[in-house]
Amino acid sequence: MPPQAPESYVDVLIIGAGPAGFMCGNALAAAGDIKVRIIDLRPSKVIAGQADGIQPRTIEVLQSYGLAERLLREGNQMHMCAFYNPNVAGEIQLTSRAPDVTAPTARFPFEVTLHQGAIEQIFMDSMAAHNLRVDRPVKPVAIEVSRDPEQLRSLSSYPVKVTLARLDAAVDADKLEVVHAKYVVGADGAHSWVRKALGITMEGEQTDYVWGVVDMIPDSNFPDIRNKTAIHSTNGSSMIIPREGDKVRLYVQLSESDVVDPATGRVDKNRMSSEQILEVARKTFQPFHIRPLSDVEWWTIYIIGQRVASRYSVEDRVFIAGDACHTHSPKAGQGMNASMNDTHNLAWKMVQVLRGWASPSILKTYEAERRKYAQDLIDFDKQFAALFSGKPRTSNNQDGVTHEDFLKAFQTFGGFTSGIGVHYSPSMIVNTKHQKSAENLVIGERMLPQVFIRAADAKPVEIQDVLPADIRFKILVFLGSMEESRLSEIHTFANELSSPTSFLQRYPMGRQVSLMFDIITIVVGDKQNFNYLSVPAILRPHWSKVLLDDTDVTDSKGGGAYKRFGISAEEVTIVIVRPDGYVGMIAPAVALEDVHAYFASFLATHTV
Amino acid sequence: MPPQAPESYVDVLIIGAGPAGFMCGNALAAAGDIKVRIIDLRPSKVIAGQADGIQPRTIEVLQSYGLAERLLREGNQMHMCAFYNPNVAGEIQLTSRAPDVTAPTARFPFEVTLHQGAIEQIFMDSMAAHNLRVDRPVKPVAIEVSRDPEQLRSLSSYPVKVTLARLDAAVDADKLEVVHAKYVVGADGAHSWVRKALGITMEGEQTDYVWGVVDMIPDSNFPDIRNKTAIHSTNGSSMIIPREGDKVRLYVQLSESDVVDPATGRVDKNRMSSEQILEVARKTFQPFHIRPLSDVEWWTIYIIGQRVASRYSVEDRVFIAGDACHTHSPKAGQGMNASMNDTHNLAWKMVQVLRGWASPSILKTYEAERRKYAQDLIDFDKQFAALFSGKPRTSNNQDGVTHEDFLKAFQTFGGFTSGIGVHYSPSMIVNTKHQKSAENLVIGERMLPQVFIRAADAKPVEIQDVLPADIRFKILVFLGSMEESRLSEIHTFANELSSPTSFLQRYPMGRQVSLMFDIITIVVGDKQNFNYLSVPAILRPHWSKVLLDDTDVTDSKGGGAYKRFGISAEEVTIVIVRPDGYVGMIAPAVALEDVHAYFASFLATHTV
Repeated sequence: MPPQAPESYVDVLIIGAGPAGFMCGNALAAAGDIKVRIIDLRPSKVIAGQADGIQPRTIEVLQSYGLAERLLREGNQMHMCAFYNPNVAGEIQLTSRAPDVTAPTARFPFEVTLHQGAIEQIFMDSMAAHNLRVDRPVKPVAIEVSRDPEQLRSLSSYPVKVTLARLDAAVDADKLEVVHAKYVVGADGAHSWVRKALGITMEGEQTDYVWGVVDMIPDSNFPDIRNKTAIHSTNGSSMIIPREGDKVRLYVQLSESDVVDPATGRVDKNRMSSEQILEVARKTFQPFHIRPLSDVEWWTIYIIGQRVASRYSVEDRVFIAGDACHTHSPKAGQGMNASMNDTHNLAWKMVQVLRGWASPSILKTYEAERRKYAQDLIDFDKQFAALFSGKPRTSNNQDGVTHEDFLKAFQTFGGFTSGIGVHYSPSMIVNTKHQKSAENLVIGERMLPQVFIRAADAKPVEIQDVLPADIRFKILVFLGSMEESRLSEIHTFANELSSPTSFLQRYPMGRQVSLMFDIITIVVGDKQNFNYLSVPAILRPHWSKVLLDDTDVTDSKGGGAYKRFGISAEEVTIVIVRPDGYVGMIAPAVALEDVHAYFASFLATHTV
Repeated sequence: MPPQAPESYVDVLIIGAGPAGFMCGNALAAAGDIKVRIIDLRPSKVIAGQADGIQPRTIEVLQSYGLAERLLREGNQMHMCAFYNPNVAGEIQLTSRAPDVTAPTARFPFEVTLHQGAIEQIFMDSMAAHNLRVDRPVKPVAIEVSRDPEQLRSLSSYPVKVTLARLDAAVDADKLEVVHAKYVVGADGAHSWVRKALGITMEGEQTDYVWGVVDMIPDSNFPDIRNKTAIHSTNGSSMIIPREGDKVRLYVQLSESDVVDPATGRVDKNRMSSEQILEVARKTFQPFHIRPLSDVEWWTIYIIGQRVASRYSVEDRVFIAGDACHTHSPKAGQGMNASMNDTHNLAWKMVQVLRGWASPSILKTYEAERRKYAQDLIDFDKQFAALFSGKPRTSNNQDGVTHEDFLKAFQTFGGFTSGIGVHYSPSMIVNTKHQKSAENLVIGERMLPQVFIRAADAKPVEIQDVLPADIRFKILVFLGSMEESRLSEIHTFANELSSPTSFLQRYPMGRQVSLMFDIITIVVGDKQNFNYLSVPAILRPHWSKVLLDDTDVTDSKGGGAYKRFGISAEEVTIVIVRPDGYVGMIAPAVALEDVHAYFASFLATHTV
């Protein structure tokens, strides 16, 4: 490296602008006070193809960043899944249809499909509104993490040094630069340079399931061409994923011998063509026809690898995320979702640490939470991919996969494939001590969607919409009923929250409470009579923060939340929702000390 | 006028960029093939104040232009109305709360408030996407309508000549220009220059109700400051209209003597100040306090005038719309809504005539439909304003207005104040002959909102969302059930529609049917089993056009429409929805001749 290479300093350097990198960049840029840079080695965003399915939970997450509205406007929705199996004549026929999403608490009970380029554009526009743009084409050529314990501990140091090469530089002298970063996120895909440079290994194996993928506008007389459809034919398996507009993606099972180069043992795209994949598809579709109306938009082939990185971090200063740390079958629609949710989990933790609010030790929960999830994902994927790639049971093949096996797996794994069932284990930020105070709000899972009625103006509001991904912990105070007999208990609680030793007063350290915490109070009361001003002032920082467990004026939404959540209307219950929307702790007011202890375990009482 | 004044030609010249002008300009620009110009004499859009309430029906209309999403994102919602009256001590107290919208079929069961400037910005951005911008500051100085019957009849002539003055022209020579227009829309407000220039008189009178209006962020301990609230106090009446953010609008009843200049008999704003209005308000609010948190954002005073123009058109070549043809009390929140809906009614008719699709005679229905509505509005407003401005009944005032009187009026007029009850009388475009085929879909009223399930992909769709304001008539074919026994009837019907004498074939004259008509077929069938390909091809121009009267996969939306609408599942029923969303005709398939006759009464069989 020439000695004159320019040097710069950033809080976070993100390497790779794919789903994981974009989610990270957008979250950090939206925080407003983080110096962040995102680079990618490709000269422009993805134009077509790639991953394209967004799960119900990921839609909720995107909604928490204000991005779901556009996704829903532009994307296709999959509500139904159809299953086709061979009849006695060996031709496929409709066996049954079932809801595509089987998670009963899903706020968005469907999956959205939209090509990755359009999804990336949504992120790019949001990032641009926060003055962050992808710097491209730029690739990292060297990375060095300080070994000085003092530097690694210090919040003001920049212990990661990354050398970047600008690929479109006119002259070599302009090509290299050095970036000093407090944190680096390697979101650079399945062949991650960051992962390899840090010597992190992948664990797991490659399967021998080989699949072809074709995106096209079809000409077909297949009745379920607009549903997600799993076809098990005697000629192999296919899957239909309908897409935005009239487009459809076909996944087609291929024979390993057709696509693997025997010399290298690797998949060789040159051994296949979209025409050959479609020829295989046509056989699985019999007696229906399917062909591209005009050109094939995009196609590829792949072997399913089911692997997870041995670790997700080096010194909690460099993290890897997304495909860089886990690869699995795309047919359960997990890839892009797992990737986005990795950095959704990581971003708020980095911001809290960079602001001096949280101890750097919370960064360890990133690997603990997300690596466990990736392992579960691969365990699931092994079972699902085997069922999917297996031959159907017929009179000639009594060992084949039955429709019942497949449907049962499809529904059993509904929590998993929807993302709704993600469950983080106990840790410094997941405290299950008082789970019984709200038995049906599972600590470590995302806050359940529920409509409440805003007390001041009777507007129905979805609770998830008042829990935006804005770096703050949300304190939901289920105050119960406000009967005369309970008022002294309620005022005592409000006074305790106002005391200097309360977490609400302690961590903001003289700054506005609302900088770090948002307080939302939920009362058992009715919209016809309740006066929101009767709630103690500390529990209503704004008129919009008092909600009623009641129905809306048309009686068609809301109500019944206390019962549904298992919360008593006769005592005060605190539900702490993490900045990423997951329930971190629940406690009755009488255990307020435990809440103080929860925050004391990871929040700092001094600024950087 | 200097002889060298530049001359130009447009299809439609819109004079005035307020709610009526914007709705017109946006609809014409979105059509794509209309040469339209919109001028306004103000140098920029409204910054604050003015009208700000959007009714449920207007939200539906904005949705049909794709504009409601942003309105809902930016605006405040009023779900509840509160009523305050004096107690025995003479202080106001909450009497009751009631849903703000009482129309049971409202798709959006609330009103939206947002300042007029923000609403205008939504239109401006939409128009800009269609390459139309407001030309300002420009004012009309002369208008001349041809008296040549031949010219007035011809579709290729430009019989209206308008001279415009550019107010920001640097030199006089650049100031004047002449525009020759096929049609002119005068949407230039209550003091309409167009109306006066054409000698159209206003009928009706001015009331002696004088009101002050103040927009501000309040500091108040009033419990219903975020609800629409009607206060009847012994010190006069007030009304609260909560607005976007933390803003509130107060309407305060004033004494005529305080604000009318005895010399002229006209309201003189110089005789009042926002402080004086607030001083009156404070008395009506006792025992609660209210004051501006900082500055008053905007204020005005006005006397309610209840007048309607004697005619809406000259030669069906110049039309007036909005405040130019009707003025009434703002407290029922009608002004901006009536104005937008005037040109929503007019725009598609002009486009159909300009394209040579419809006979110019349909333009007569504009005045017939909208002037009758304005008269009804004024009749309603007289009763409502009298109740609102009247003193409350107390022990000392037995003749006063009781809360029951007021609440009853509020709920009786719910269809009116929501805009949902707008009902157009029979005309060439409203044919009630076969009303009995769908007794609960009232011909002349807007198509009822209803969720159906898309047959091809089980997506729940709101029927209003597949009836966009895109100039086309929508043909809803309620096919009934598709049992074996009905198939020959269904195929006979499909064949009749395909015949050269069918309206579907006759008016497009060899062009694509979908250019003029959109066909949507609604079947009694279930999403688990129905095959959308079983519907005859002419009834499914696209896979998205077949809907099922079924519930969605979560069983929470849709279903029951045939019963609700009063449509038989045992015969084919055609529901024709006008381009503006109003039901124009209903007929059983056996009366297909009547449908042909309906279209023959106003559609042309030759191009211009």
